[in-house]
Amino acid sequence: MRVAARYAYIGDLQMKRYNIAVVGVGAVGIEMLRCLRRRNFPIKELRVFARSSREIEVDGQKYSVDAISPEGFEGIDIALFAGTEGEKGAAVAFAPEAIKRGAVVIDNGADFRMKKDVPLVIPEVNPEDAEKHKGIIANPNCSTIQMVVALWPIYKKAGIKRIIACSYQAVSGAGRGGVIQLESELEGKDVLEKTFAYPIARNVIPQIGEFGDFDYTSEEWKMVNETHKIMHDKSIKISATCVRVPVKTGHSEAIYLETKKNIGADMIRELLVESSGIKVIDQPLTSYPLPIEAEGKDEVFVGRIRKDPFLKNGLWLWVVSDNLLKGAALNAIQIAELL
Amino acid sequence: MRVAARYAYIGDLQMKRYNIAVVGVGAVGIEMLRCLRRRNFPIKELRVFARSSREIEVDGQKYSVDAISPEGFEGIDIALFAGTEGEKGAAVAFAPEAIKRGAVVIDNGADFRMKKDVPLVIPEVNPEDAEKHKGIIANPNCSTIQMVVALWPIYKKAGIKRIIACSYQAVSGAGRGGVIQLESELEGKDVLEKTFAYPIARNVIPQIGEFGDFDYTSEEWKMVNETHKIMHDKSIKISATCVRVPVKTGHSEAIYLETKKNIGADMIRELLVESSGIKVIDQPLTSYPLPIEAEGKDEVFVGRIRKDPFLKNGLWLWVVSDNLLKGAALNAIQIAELL
Repeated sequence: MRVAARYAYIGDLQMKRYNIAVVGVGAVGIEMLRCLRRRNFPIKELRVFARSSREIEVDGQKYSVDAISPEGFEGIDIALFAGTEGEKGAAVAFAPEAIKRGAVVIDNGADFRMKKDVPLVIPEVNPEDAEKHKGIIANPNCSTIQMVVALWPIYKKAGIKRIIACSYQAVSGAGRGGVIQLESELEGKDVLEKTFAYPIARNVIPQIGEFGDFDYTSEEWKMVNETHKIMHDKSIKISATCVRVPVKTGHSEAIYLETKKNIGADMIRELLVESSGIKVIDQPLTSYPLPIEAEGKDEVFVGRIRKDPFLKNGLWLWVVSDNLLKGAALNAIQIAELL
Repeated sequence: MRVAARYAYIGDLQMKRYNIAVVGVGAVGIEMLRCLRRRNFPIKELRVFARSSREIEVDGQKYSVDAISPEGFEGIDIALFAGTEGEKGAAVAFAPEAIKRGAVVIDNGADFRMKKDVPLVIPEVNPEDAEKHKGIIANPNCSTIQMVVALWPIYKKAGIKRIIACSYQAVSGAGRGGVIQLESELEGKDVLEKTFAYPIARNVIPQIGEFGDFDYTSEEWKMVNETHKIMHDKSIKISATCVRVPVKTGHSEAIYLETKKNIGADMIRELLVESSGIKVIDQPLTSYPLPIEAEGKDEVFVGRIRKDPFLKNGLWLWVVSDNLLKGAALNAIQIAELL
């Protein structure tokens, strides 16, 4: 409700307009441009940066892209860095330059997320953290955002002791190269630059990111560490297996929870129906969220809400969202709207 | 080891040969014919039955298929029923006819699995149960078999308190219609007879089978009830989410366990390497089982063996197997070999 109220407030104040920079024109950068337009963000001037200058067209709208430079951030109010893992360079090198010139940076990549002074924000969950920024606010990882949006209302009502999550993540989460590899393989074509180490067409790959401590992947650690940081509760035991599946866009997650207090499936449905940013699709005999239907939509979709028959406080959720929208671009724009 | 010894025994005794019937020539029936041939099963006479008579060819070998009838089972020693859910009719109507005529029925379908007098057998796990049959032995469900093969050595060594499993199941698990729907959708063609209620190309569907108690699907209940029966231990708390993915053949499972005794990841690797029917693929930085590589292979592949950083006795496995082979046809032939 708080978030909705803030949106309304921005809507009323159309007089105040901002100079915005979007850095990166990969899958997420393009969605950022779409979101800014679709949500009528109050823009005075929009600058788009990438490694080299060019002209691009998104949904019939032309944008001239400039080669990124420190001076380009002169006069910018909010700089949206789209870069994910593969484009780390841009945020590390240019975010300090943008901040130095008075911009607030909202970074979608992983470089700053776990830094102590950098708030990690989901507007539906911890909007107040955004106010504590020191020039940079980080956007959480896609698989974390949709999980935490779905769990937050349950956490507030019943507490959460444990989370065991399995993901079914779309190829666009790895950027445009992931989509190209899937589509090329489906067409039987050779892929010159491989985004995934193994074929992804008609396959699933149980590795996202690099391997780290305890033989967890970086994606699996993000679901643990980012969730602890956003929810301000490190006592929750979180464990995950993250898997890439041959879906273009839309991450799905089977999430098993143990709550502190007992809470029924019907009560959870009611709770989530009333929560902002969530759409419940849960007619057990007929409907549940599907990634193919979530593509292009803003909400986090939740279904298959059901109790563990053998454990009083155990329950499952099936959570689906567009990884490029709520999982990345939309959440970043929502953070900008908070400002 | 016990199983391997029995195979050798059969190999030596090539003089004793059996009259075998295969009922059904869908995806599983075809694999049964392949397995019988590949494993040099000591066949005297082979009869193949389906709804109507015809001739089929499998890997260049011709088989004449007869229309199924009670009299067809006259003189048969072992009748292998390939039918899964969709073909329920055959086993319910004709298994009693085959038994009446002196055959032992090995049924791959779900009709008899949970009946008190019917052993449910995985040769690597509970071969002794096969001896207690009263004319019919049931083959467990594909998603159950590969999970239990992987867990059994761990159960014997350290005990198991809980299992939380998420599956990534191939379309061929739904029979040939599932493969046709996936391939047609990938080619952009209309599918006349839909096996899945929703598109499966570039999608995942969190429903396998029909919904039942606690809003679990029948596939999810099979993983609970069949595992309890095969392992003779109903105290294990099992909970699952089963999901169809756009993979042709090869089911994958992310399995979270809580053991009774603490057991390290290295010890589990050693245990599984020595266990029959299992191949460990677990170089965390480079390799893990993939469904695309498991297709056509007999083993249950296990990888991503790792401990939960937050819970001493918690651990993950990633388990992949060919759902038509170890998950169905091969396991049935192995049961026949036990006899």
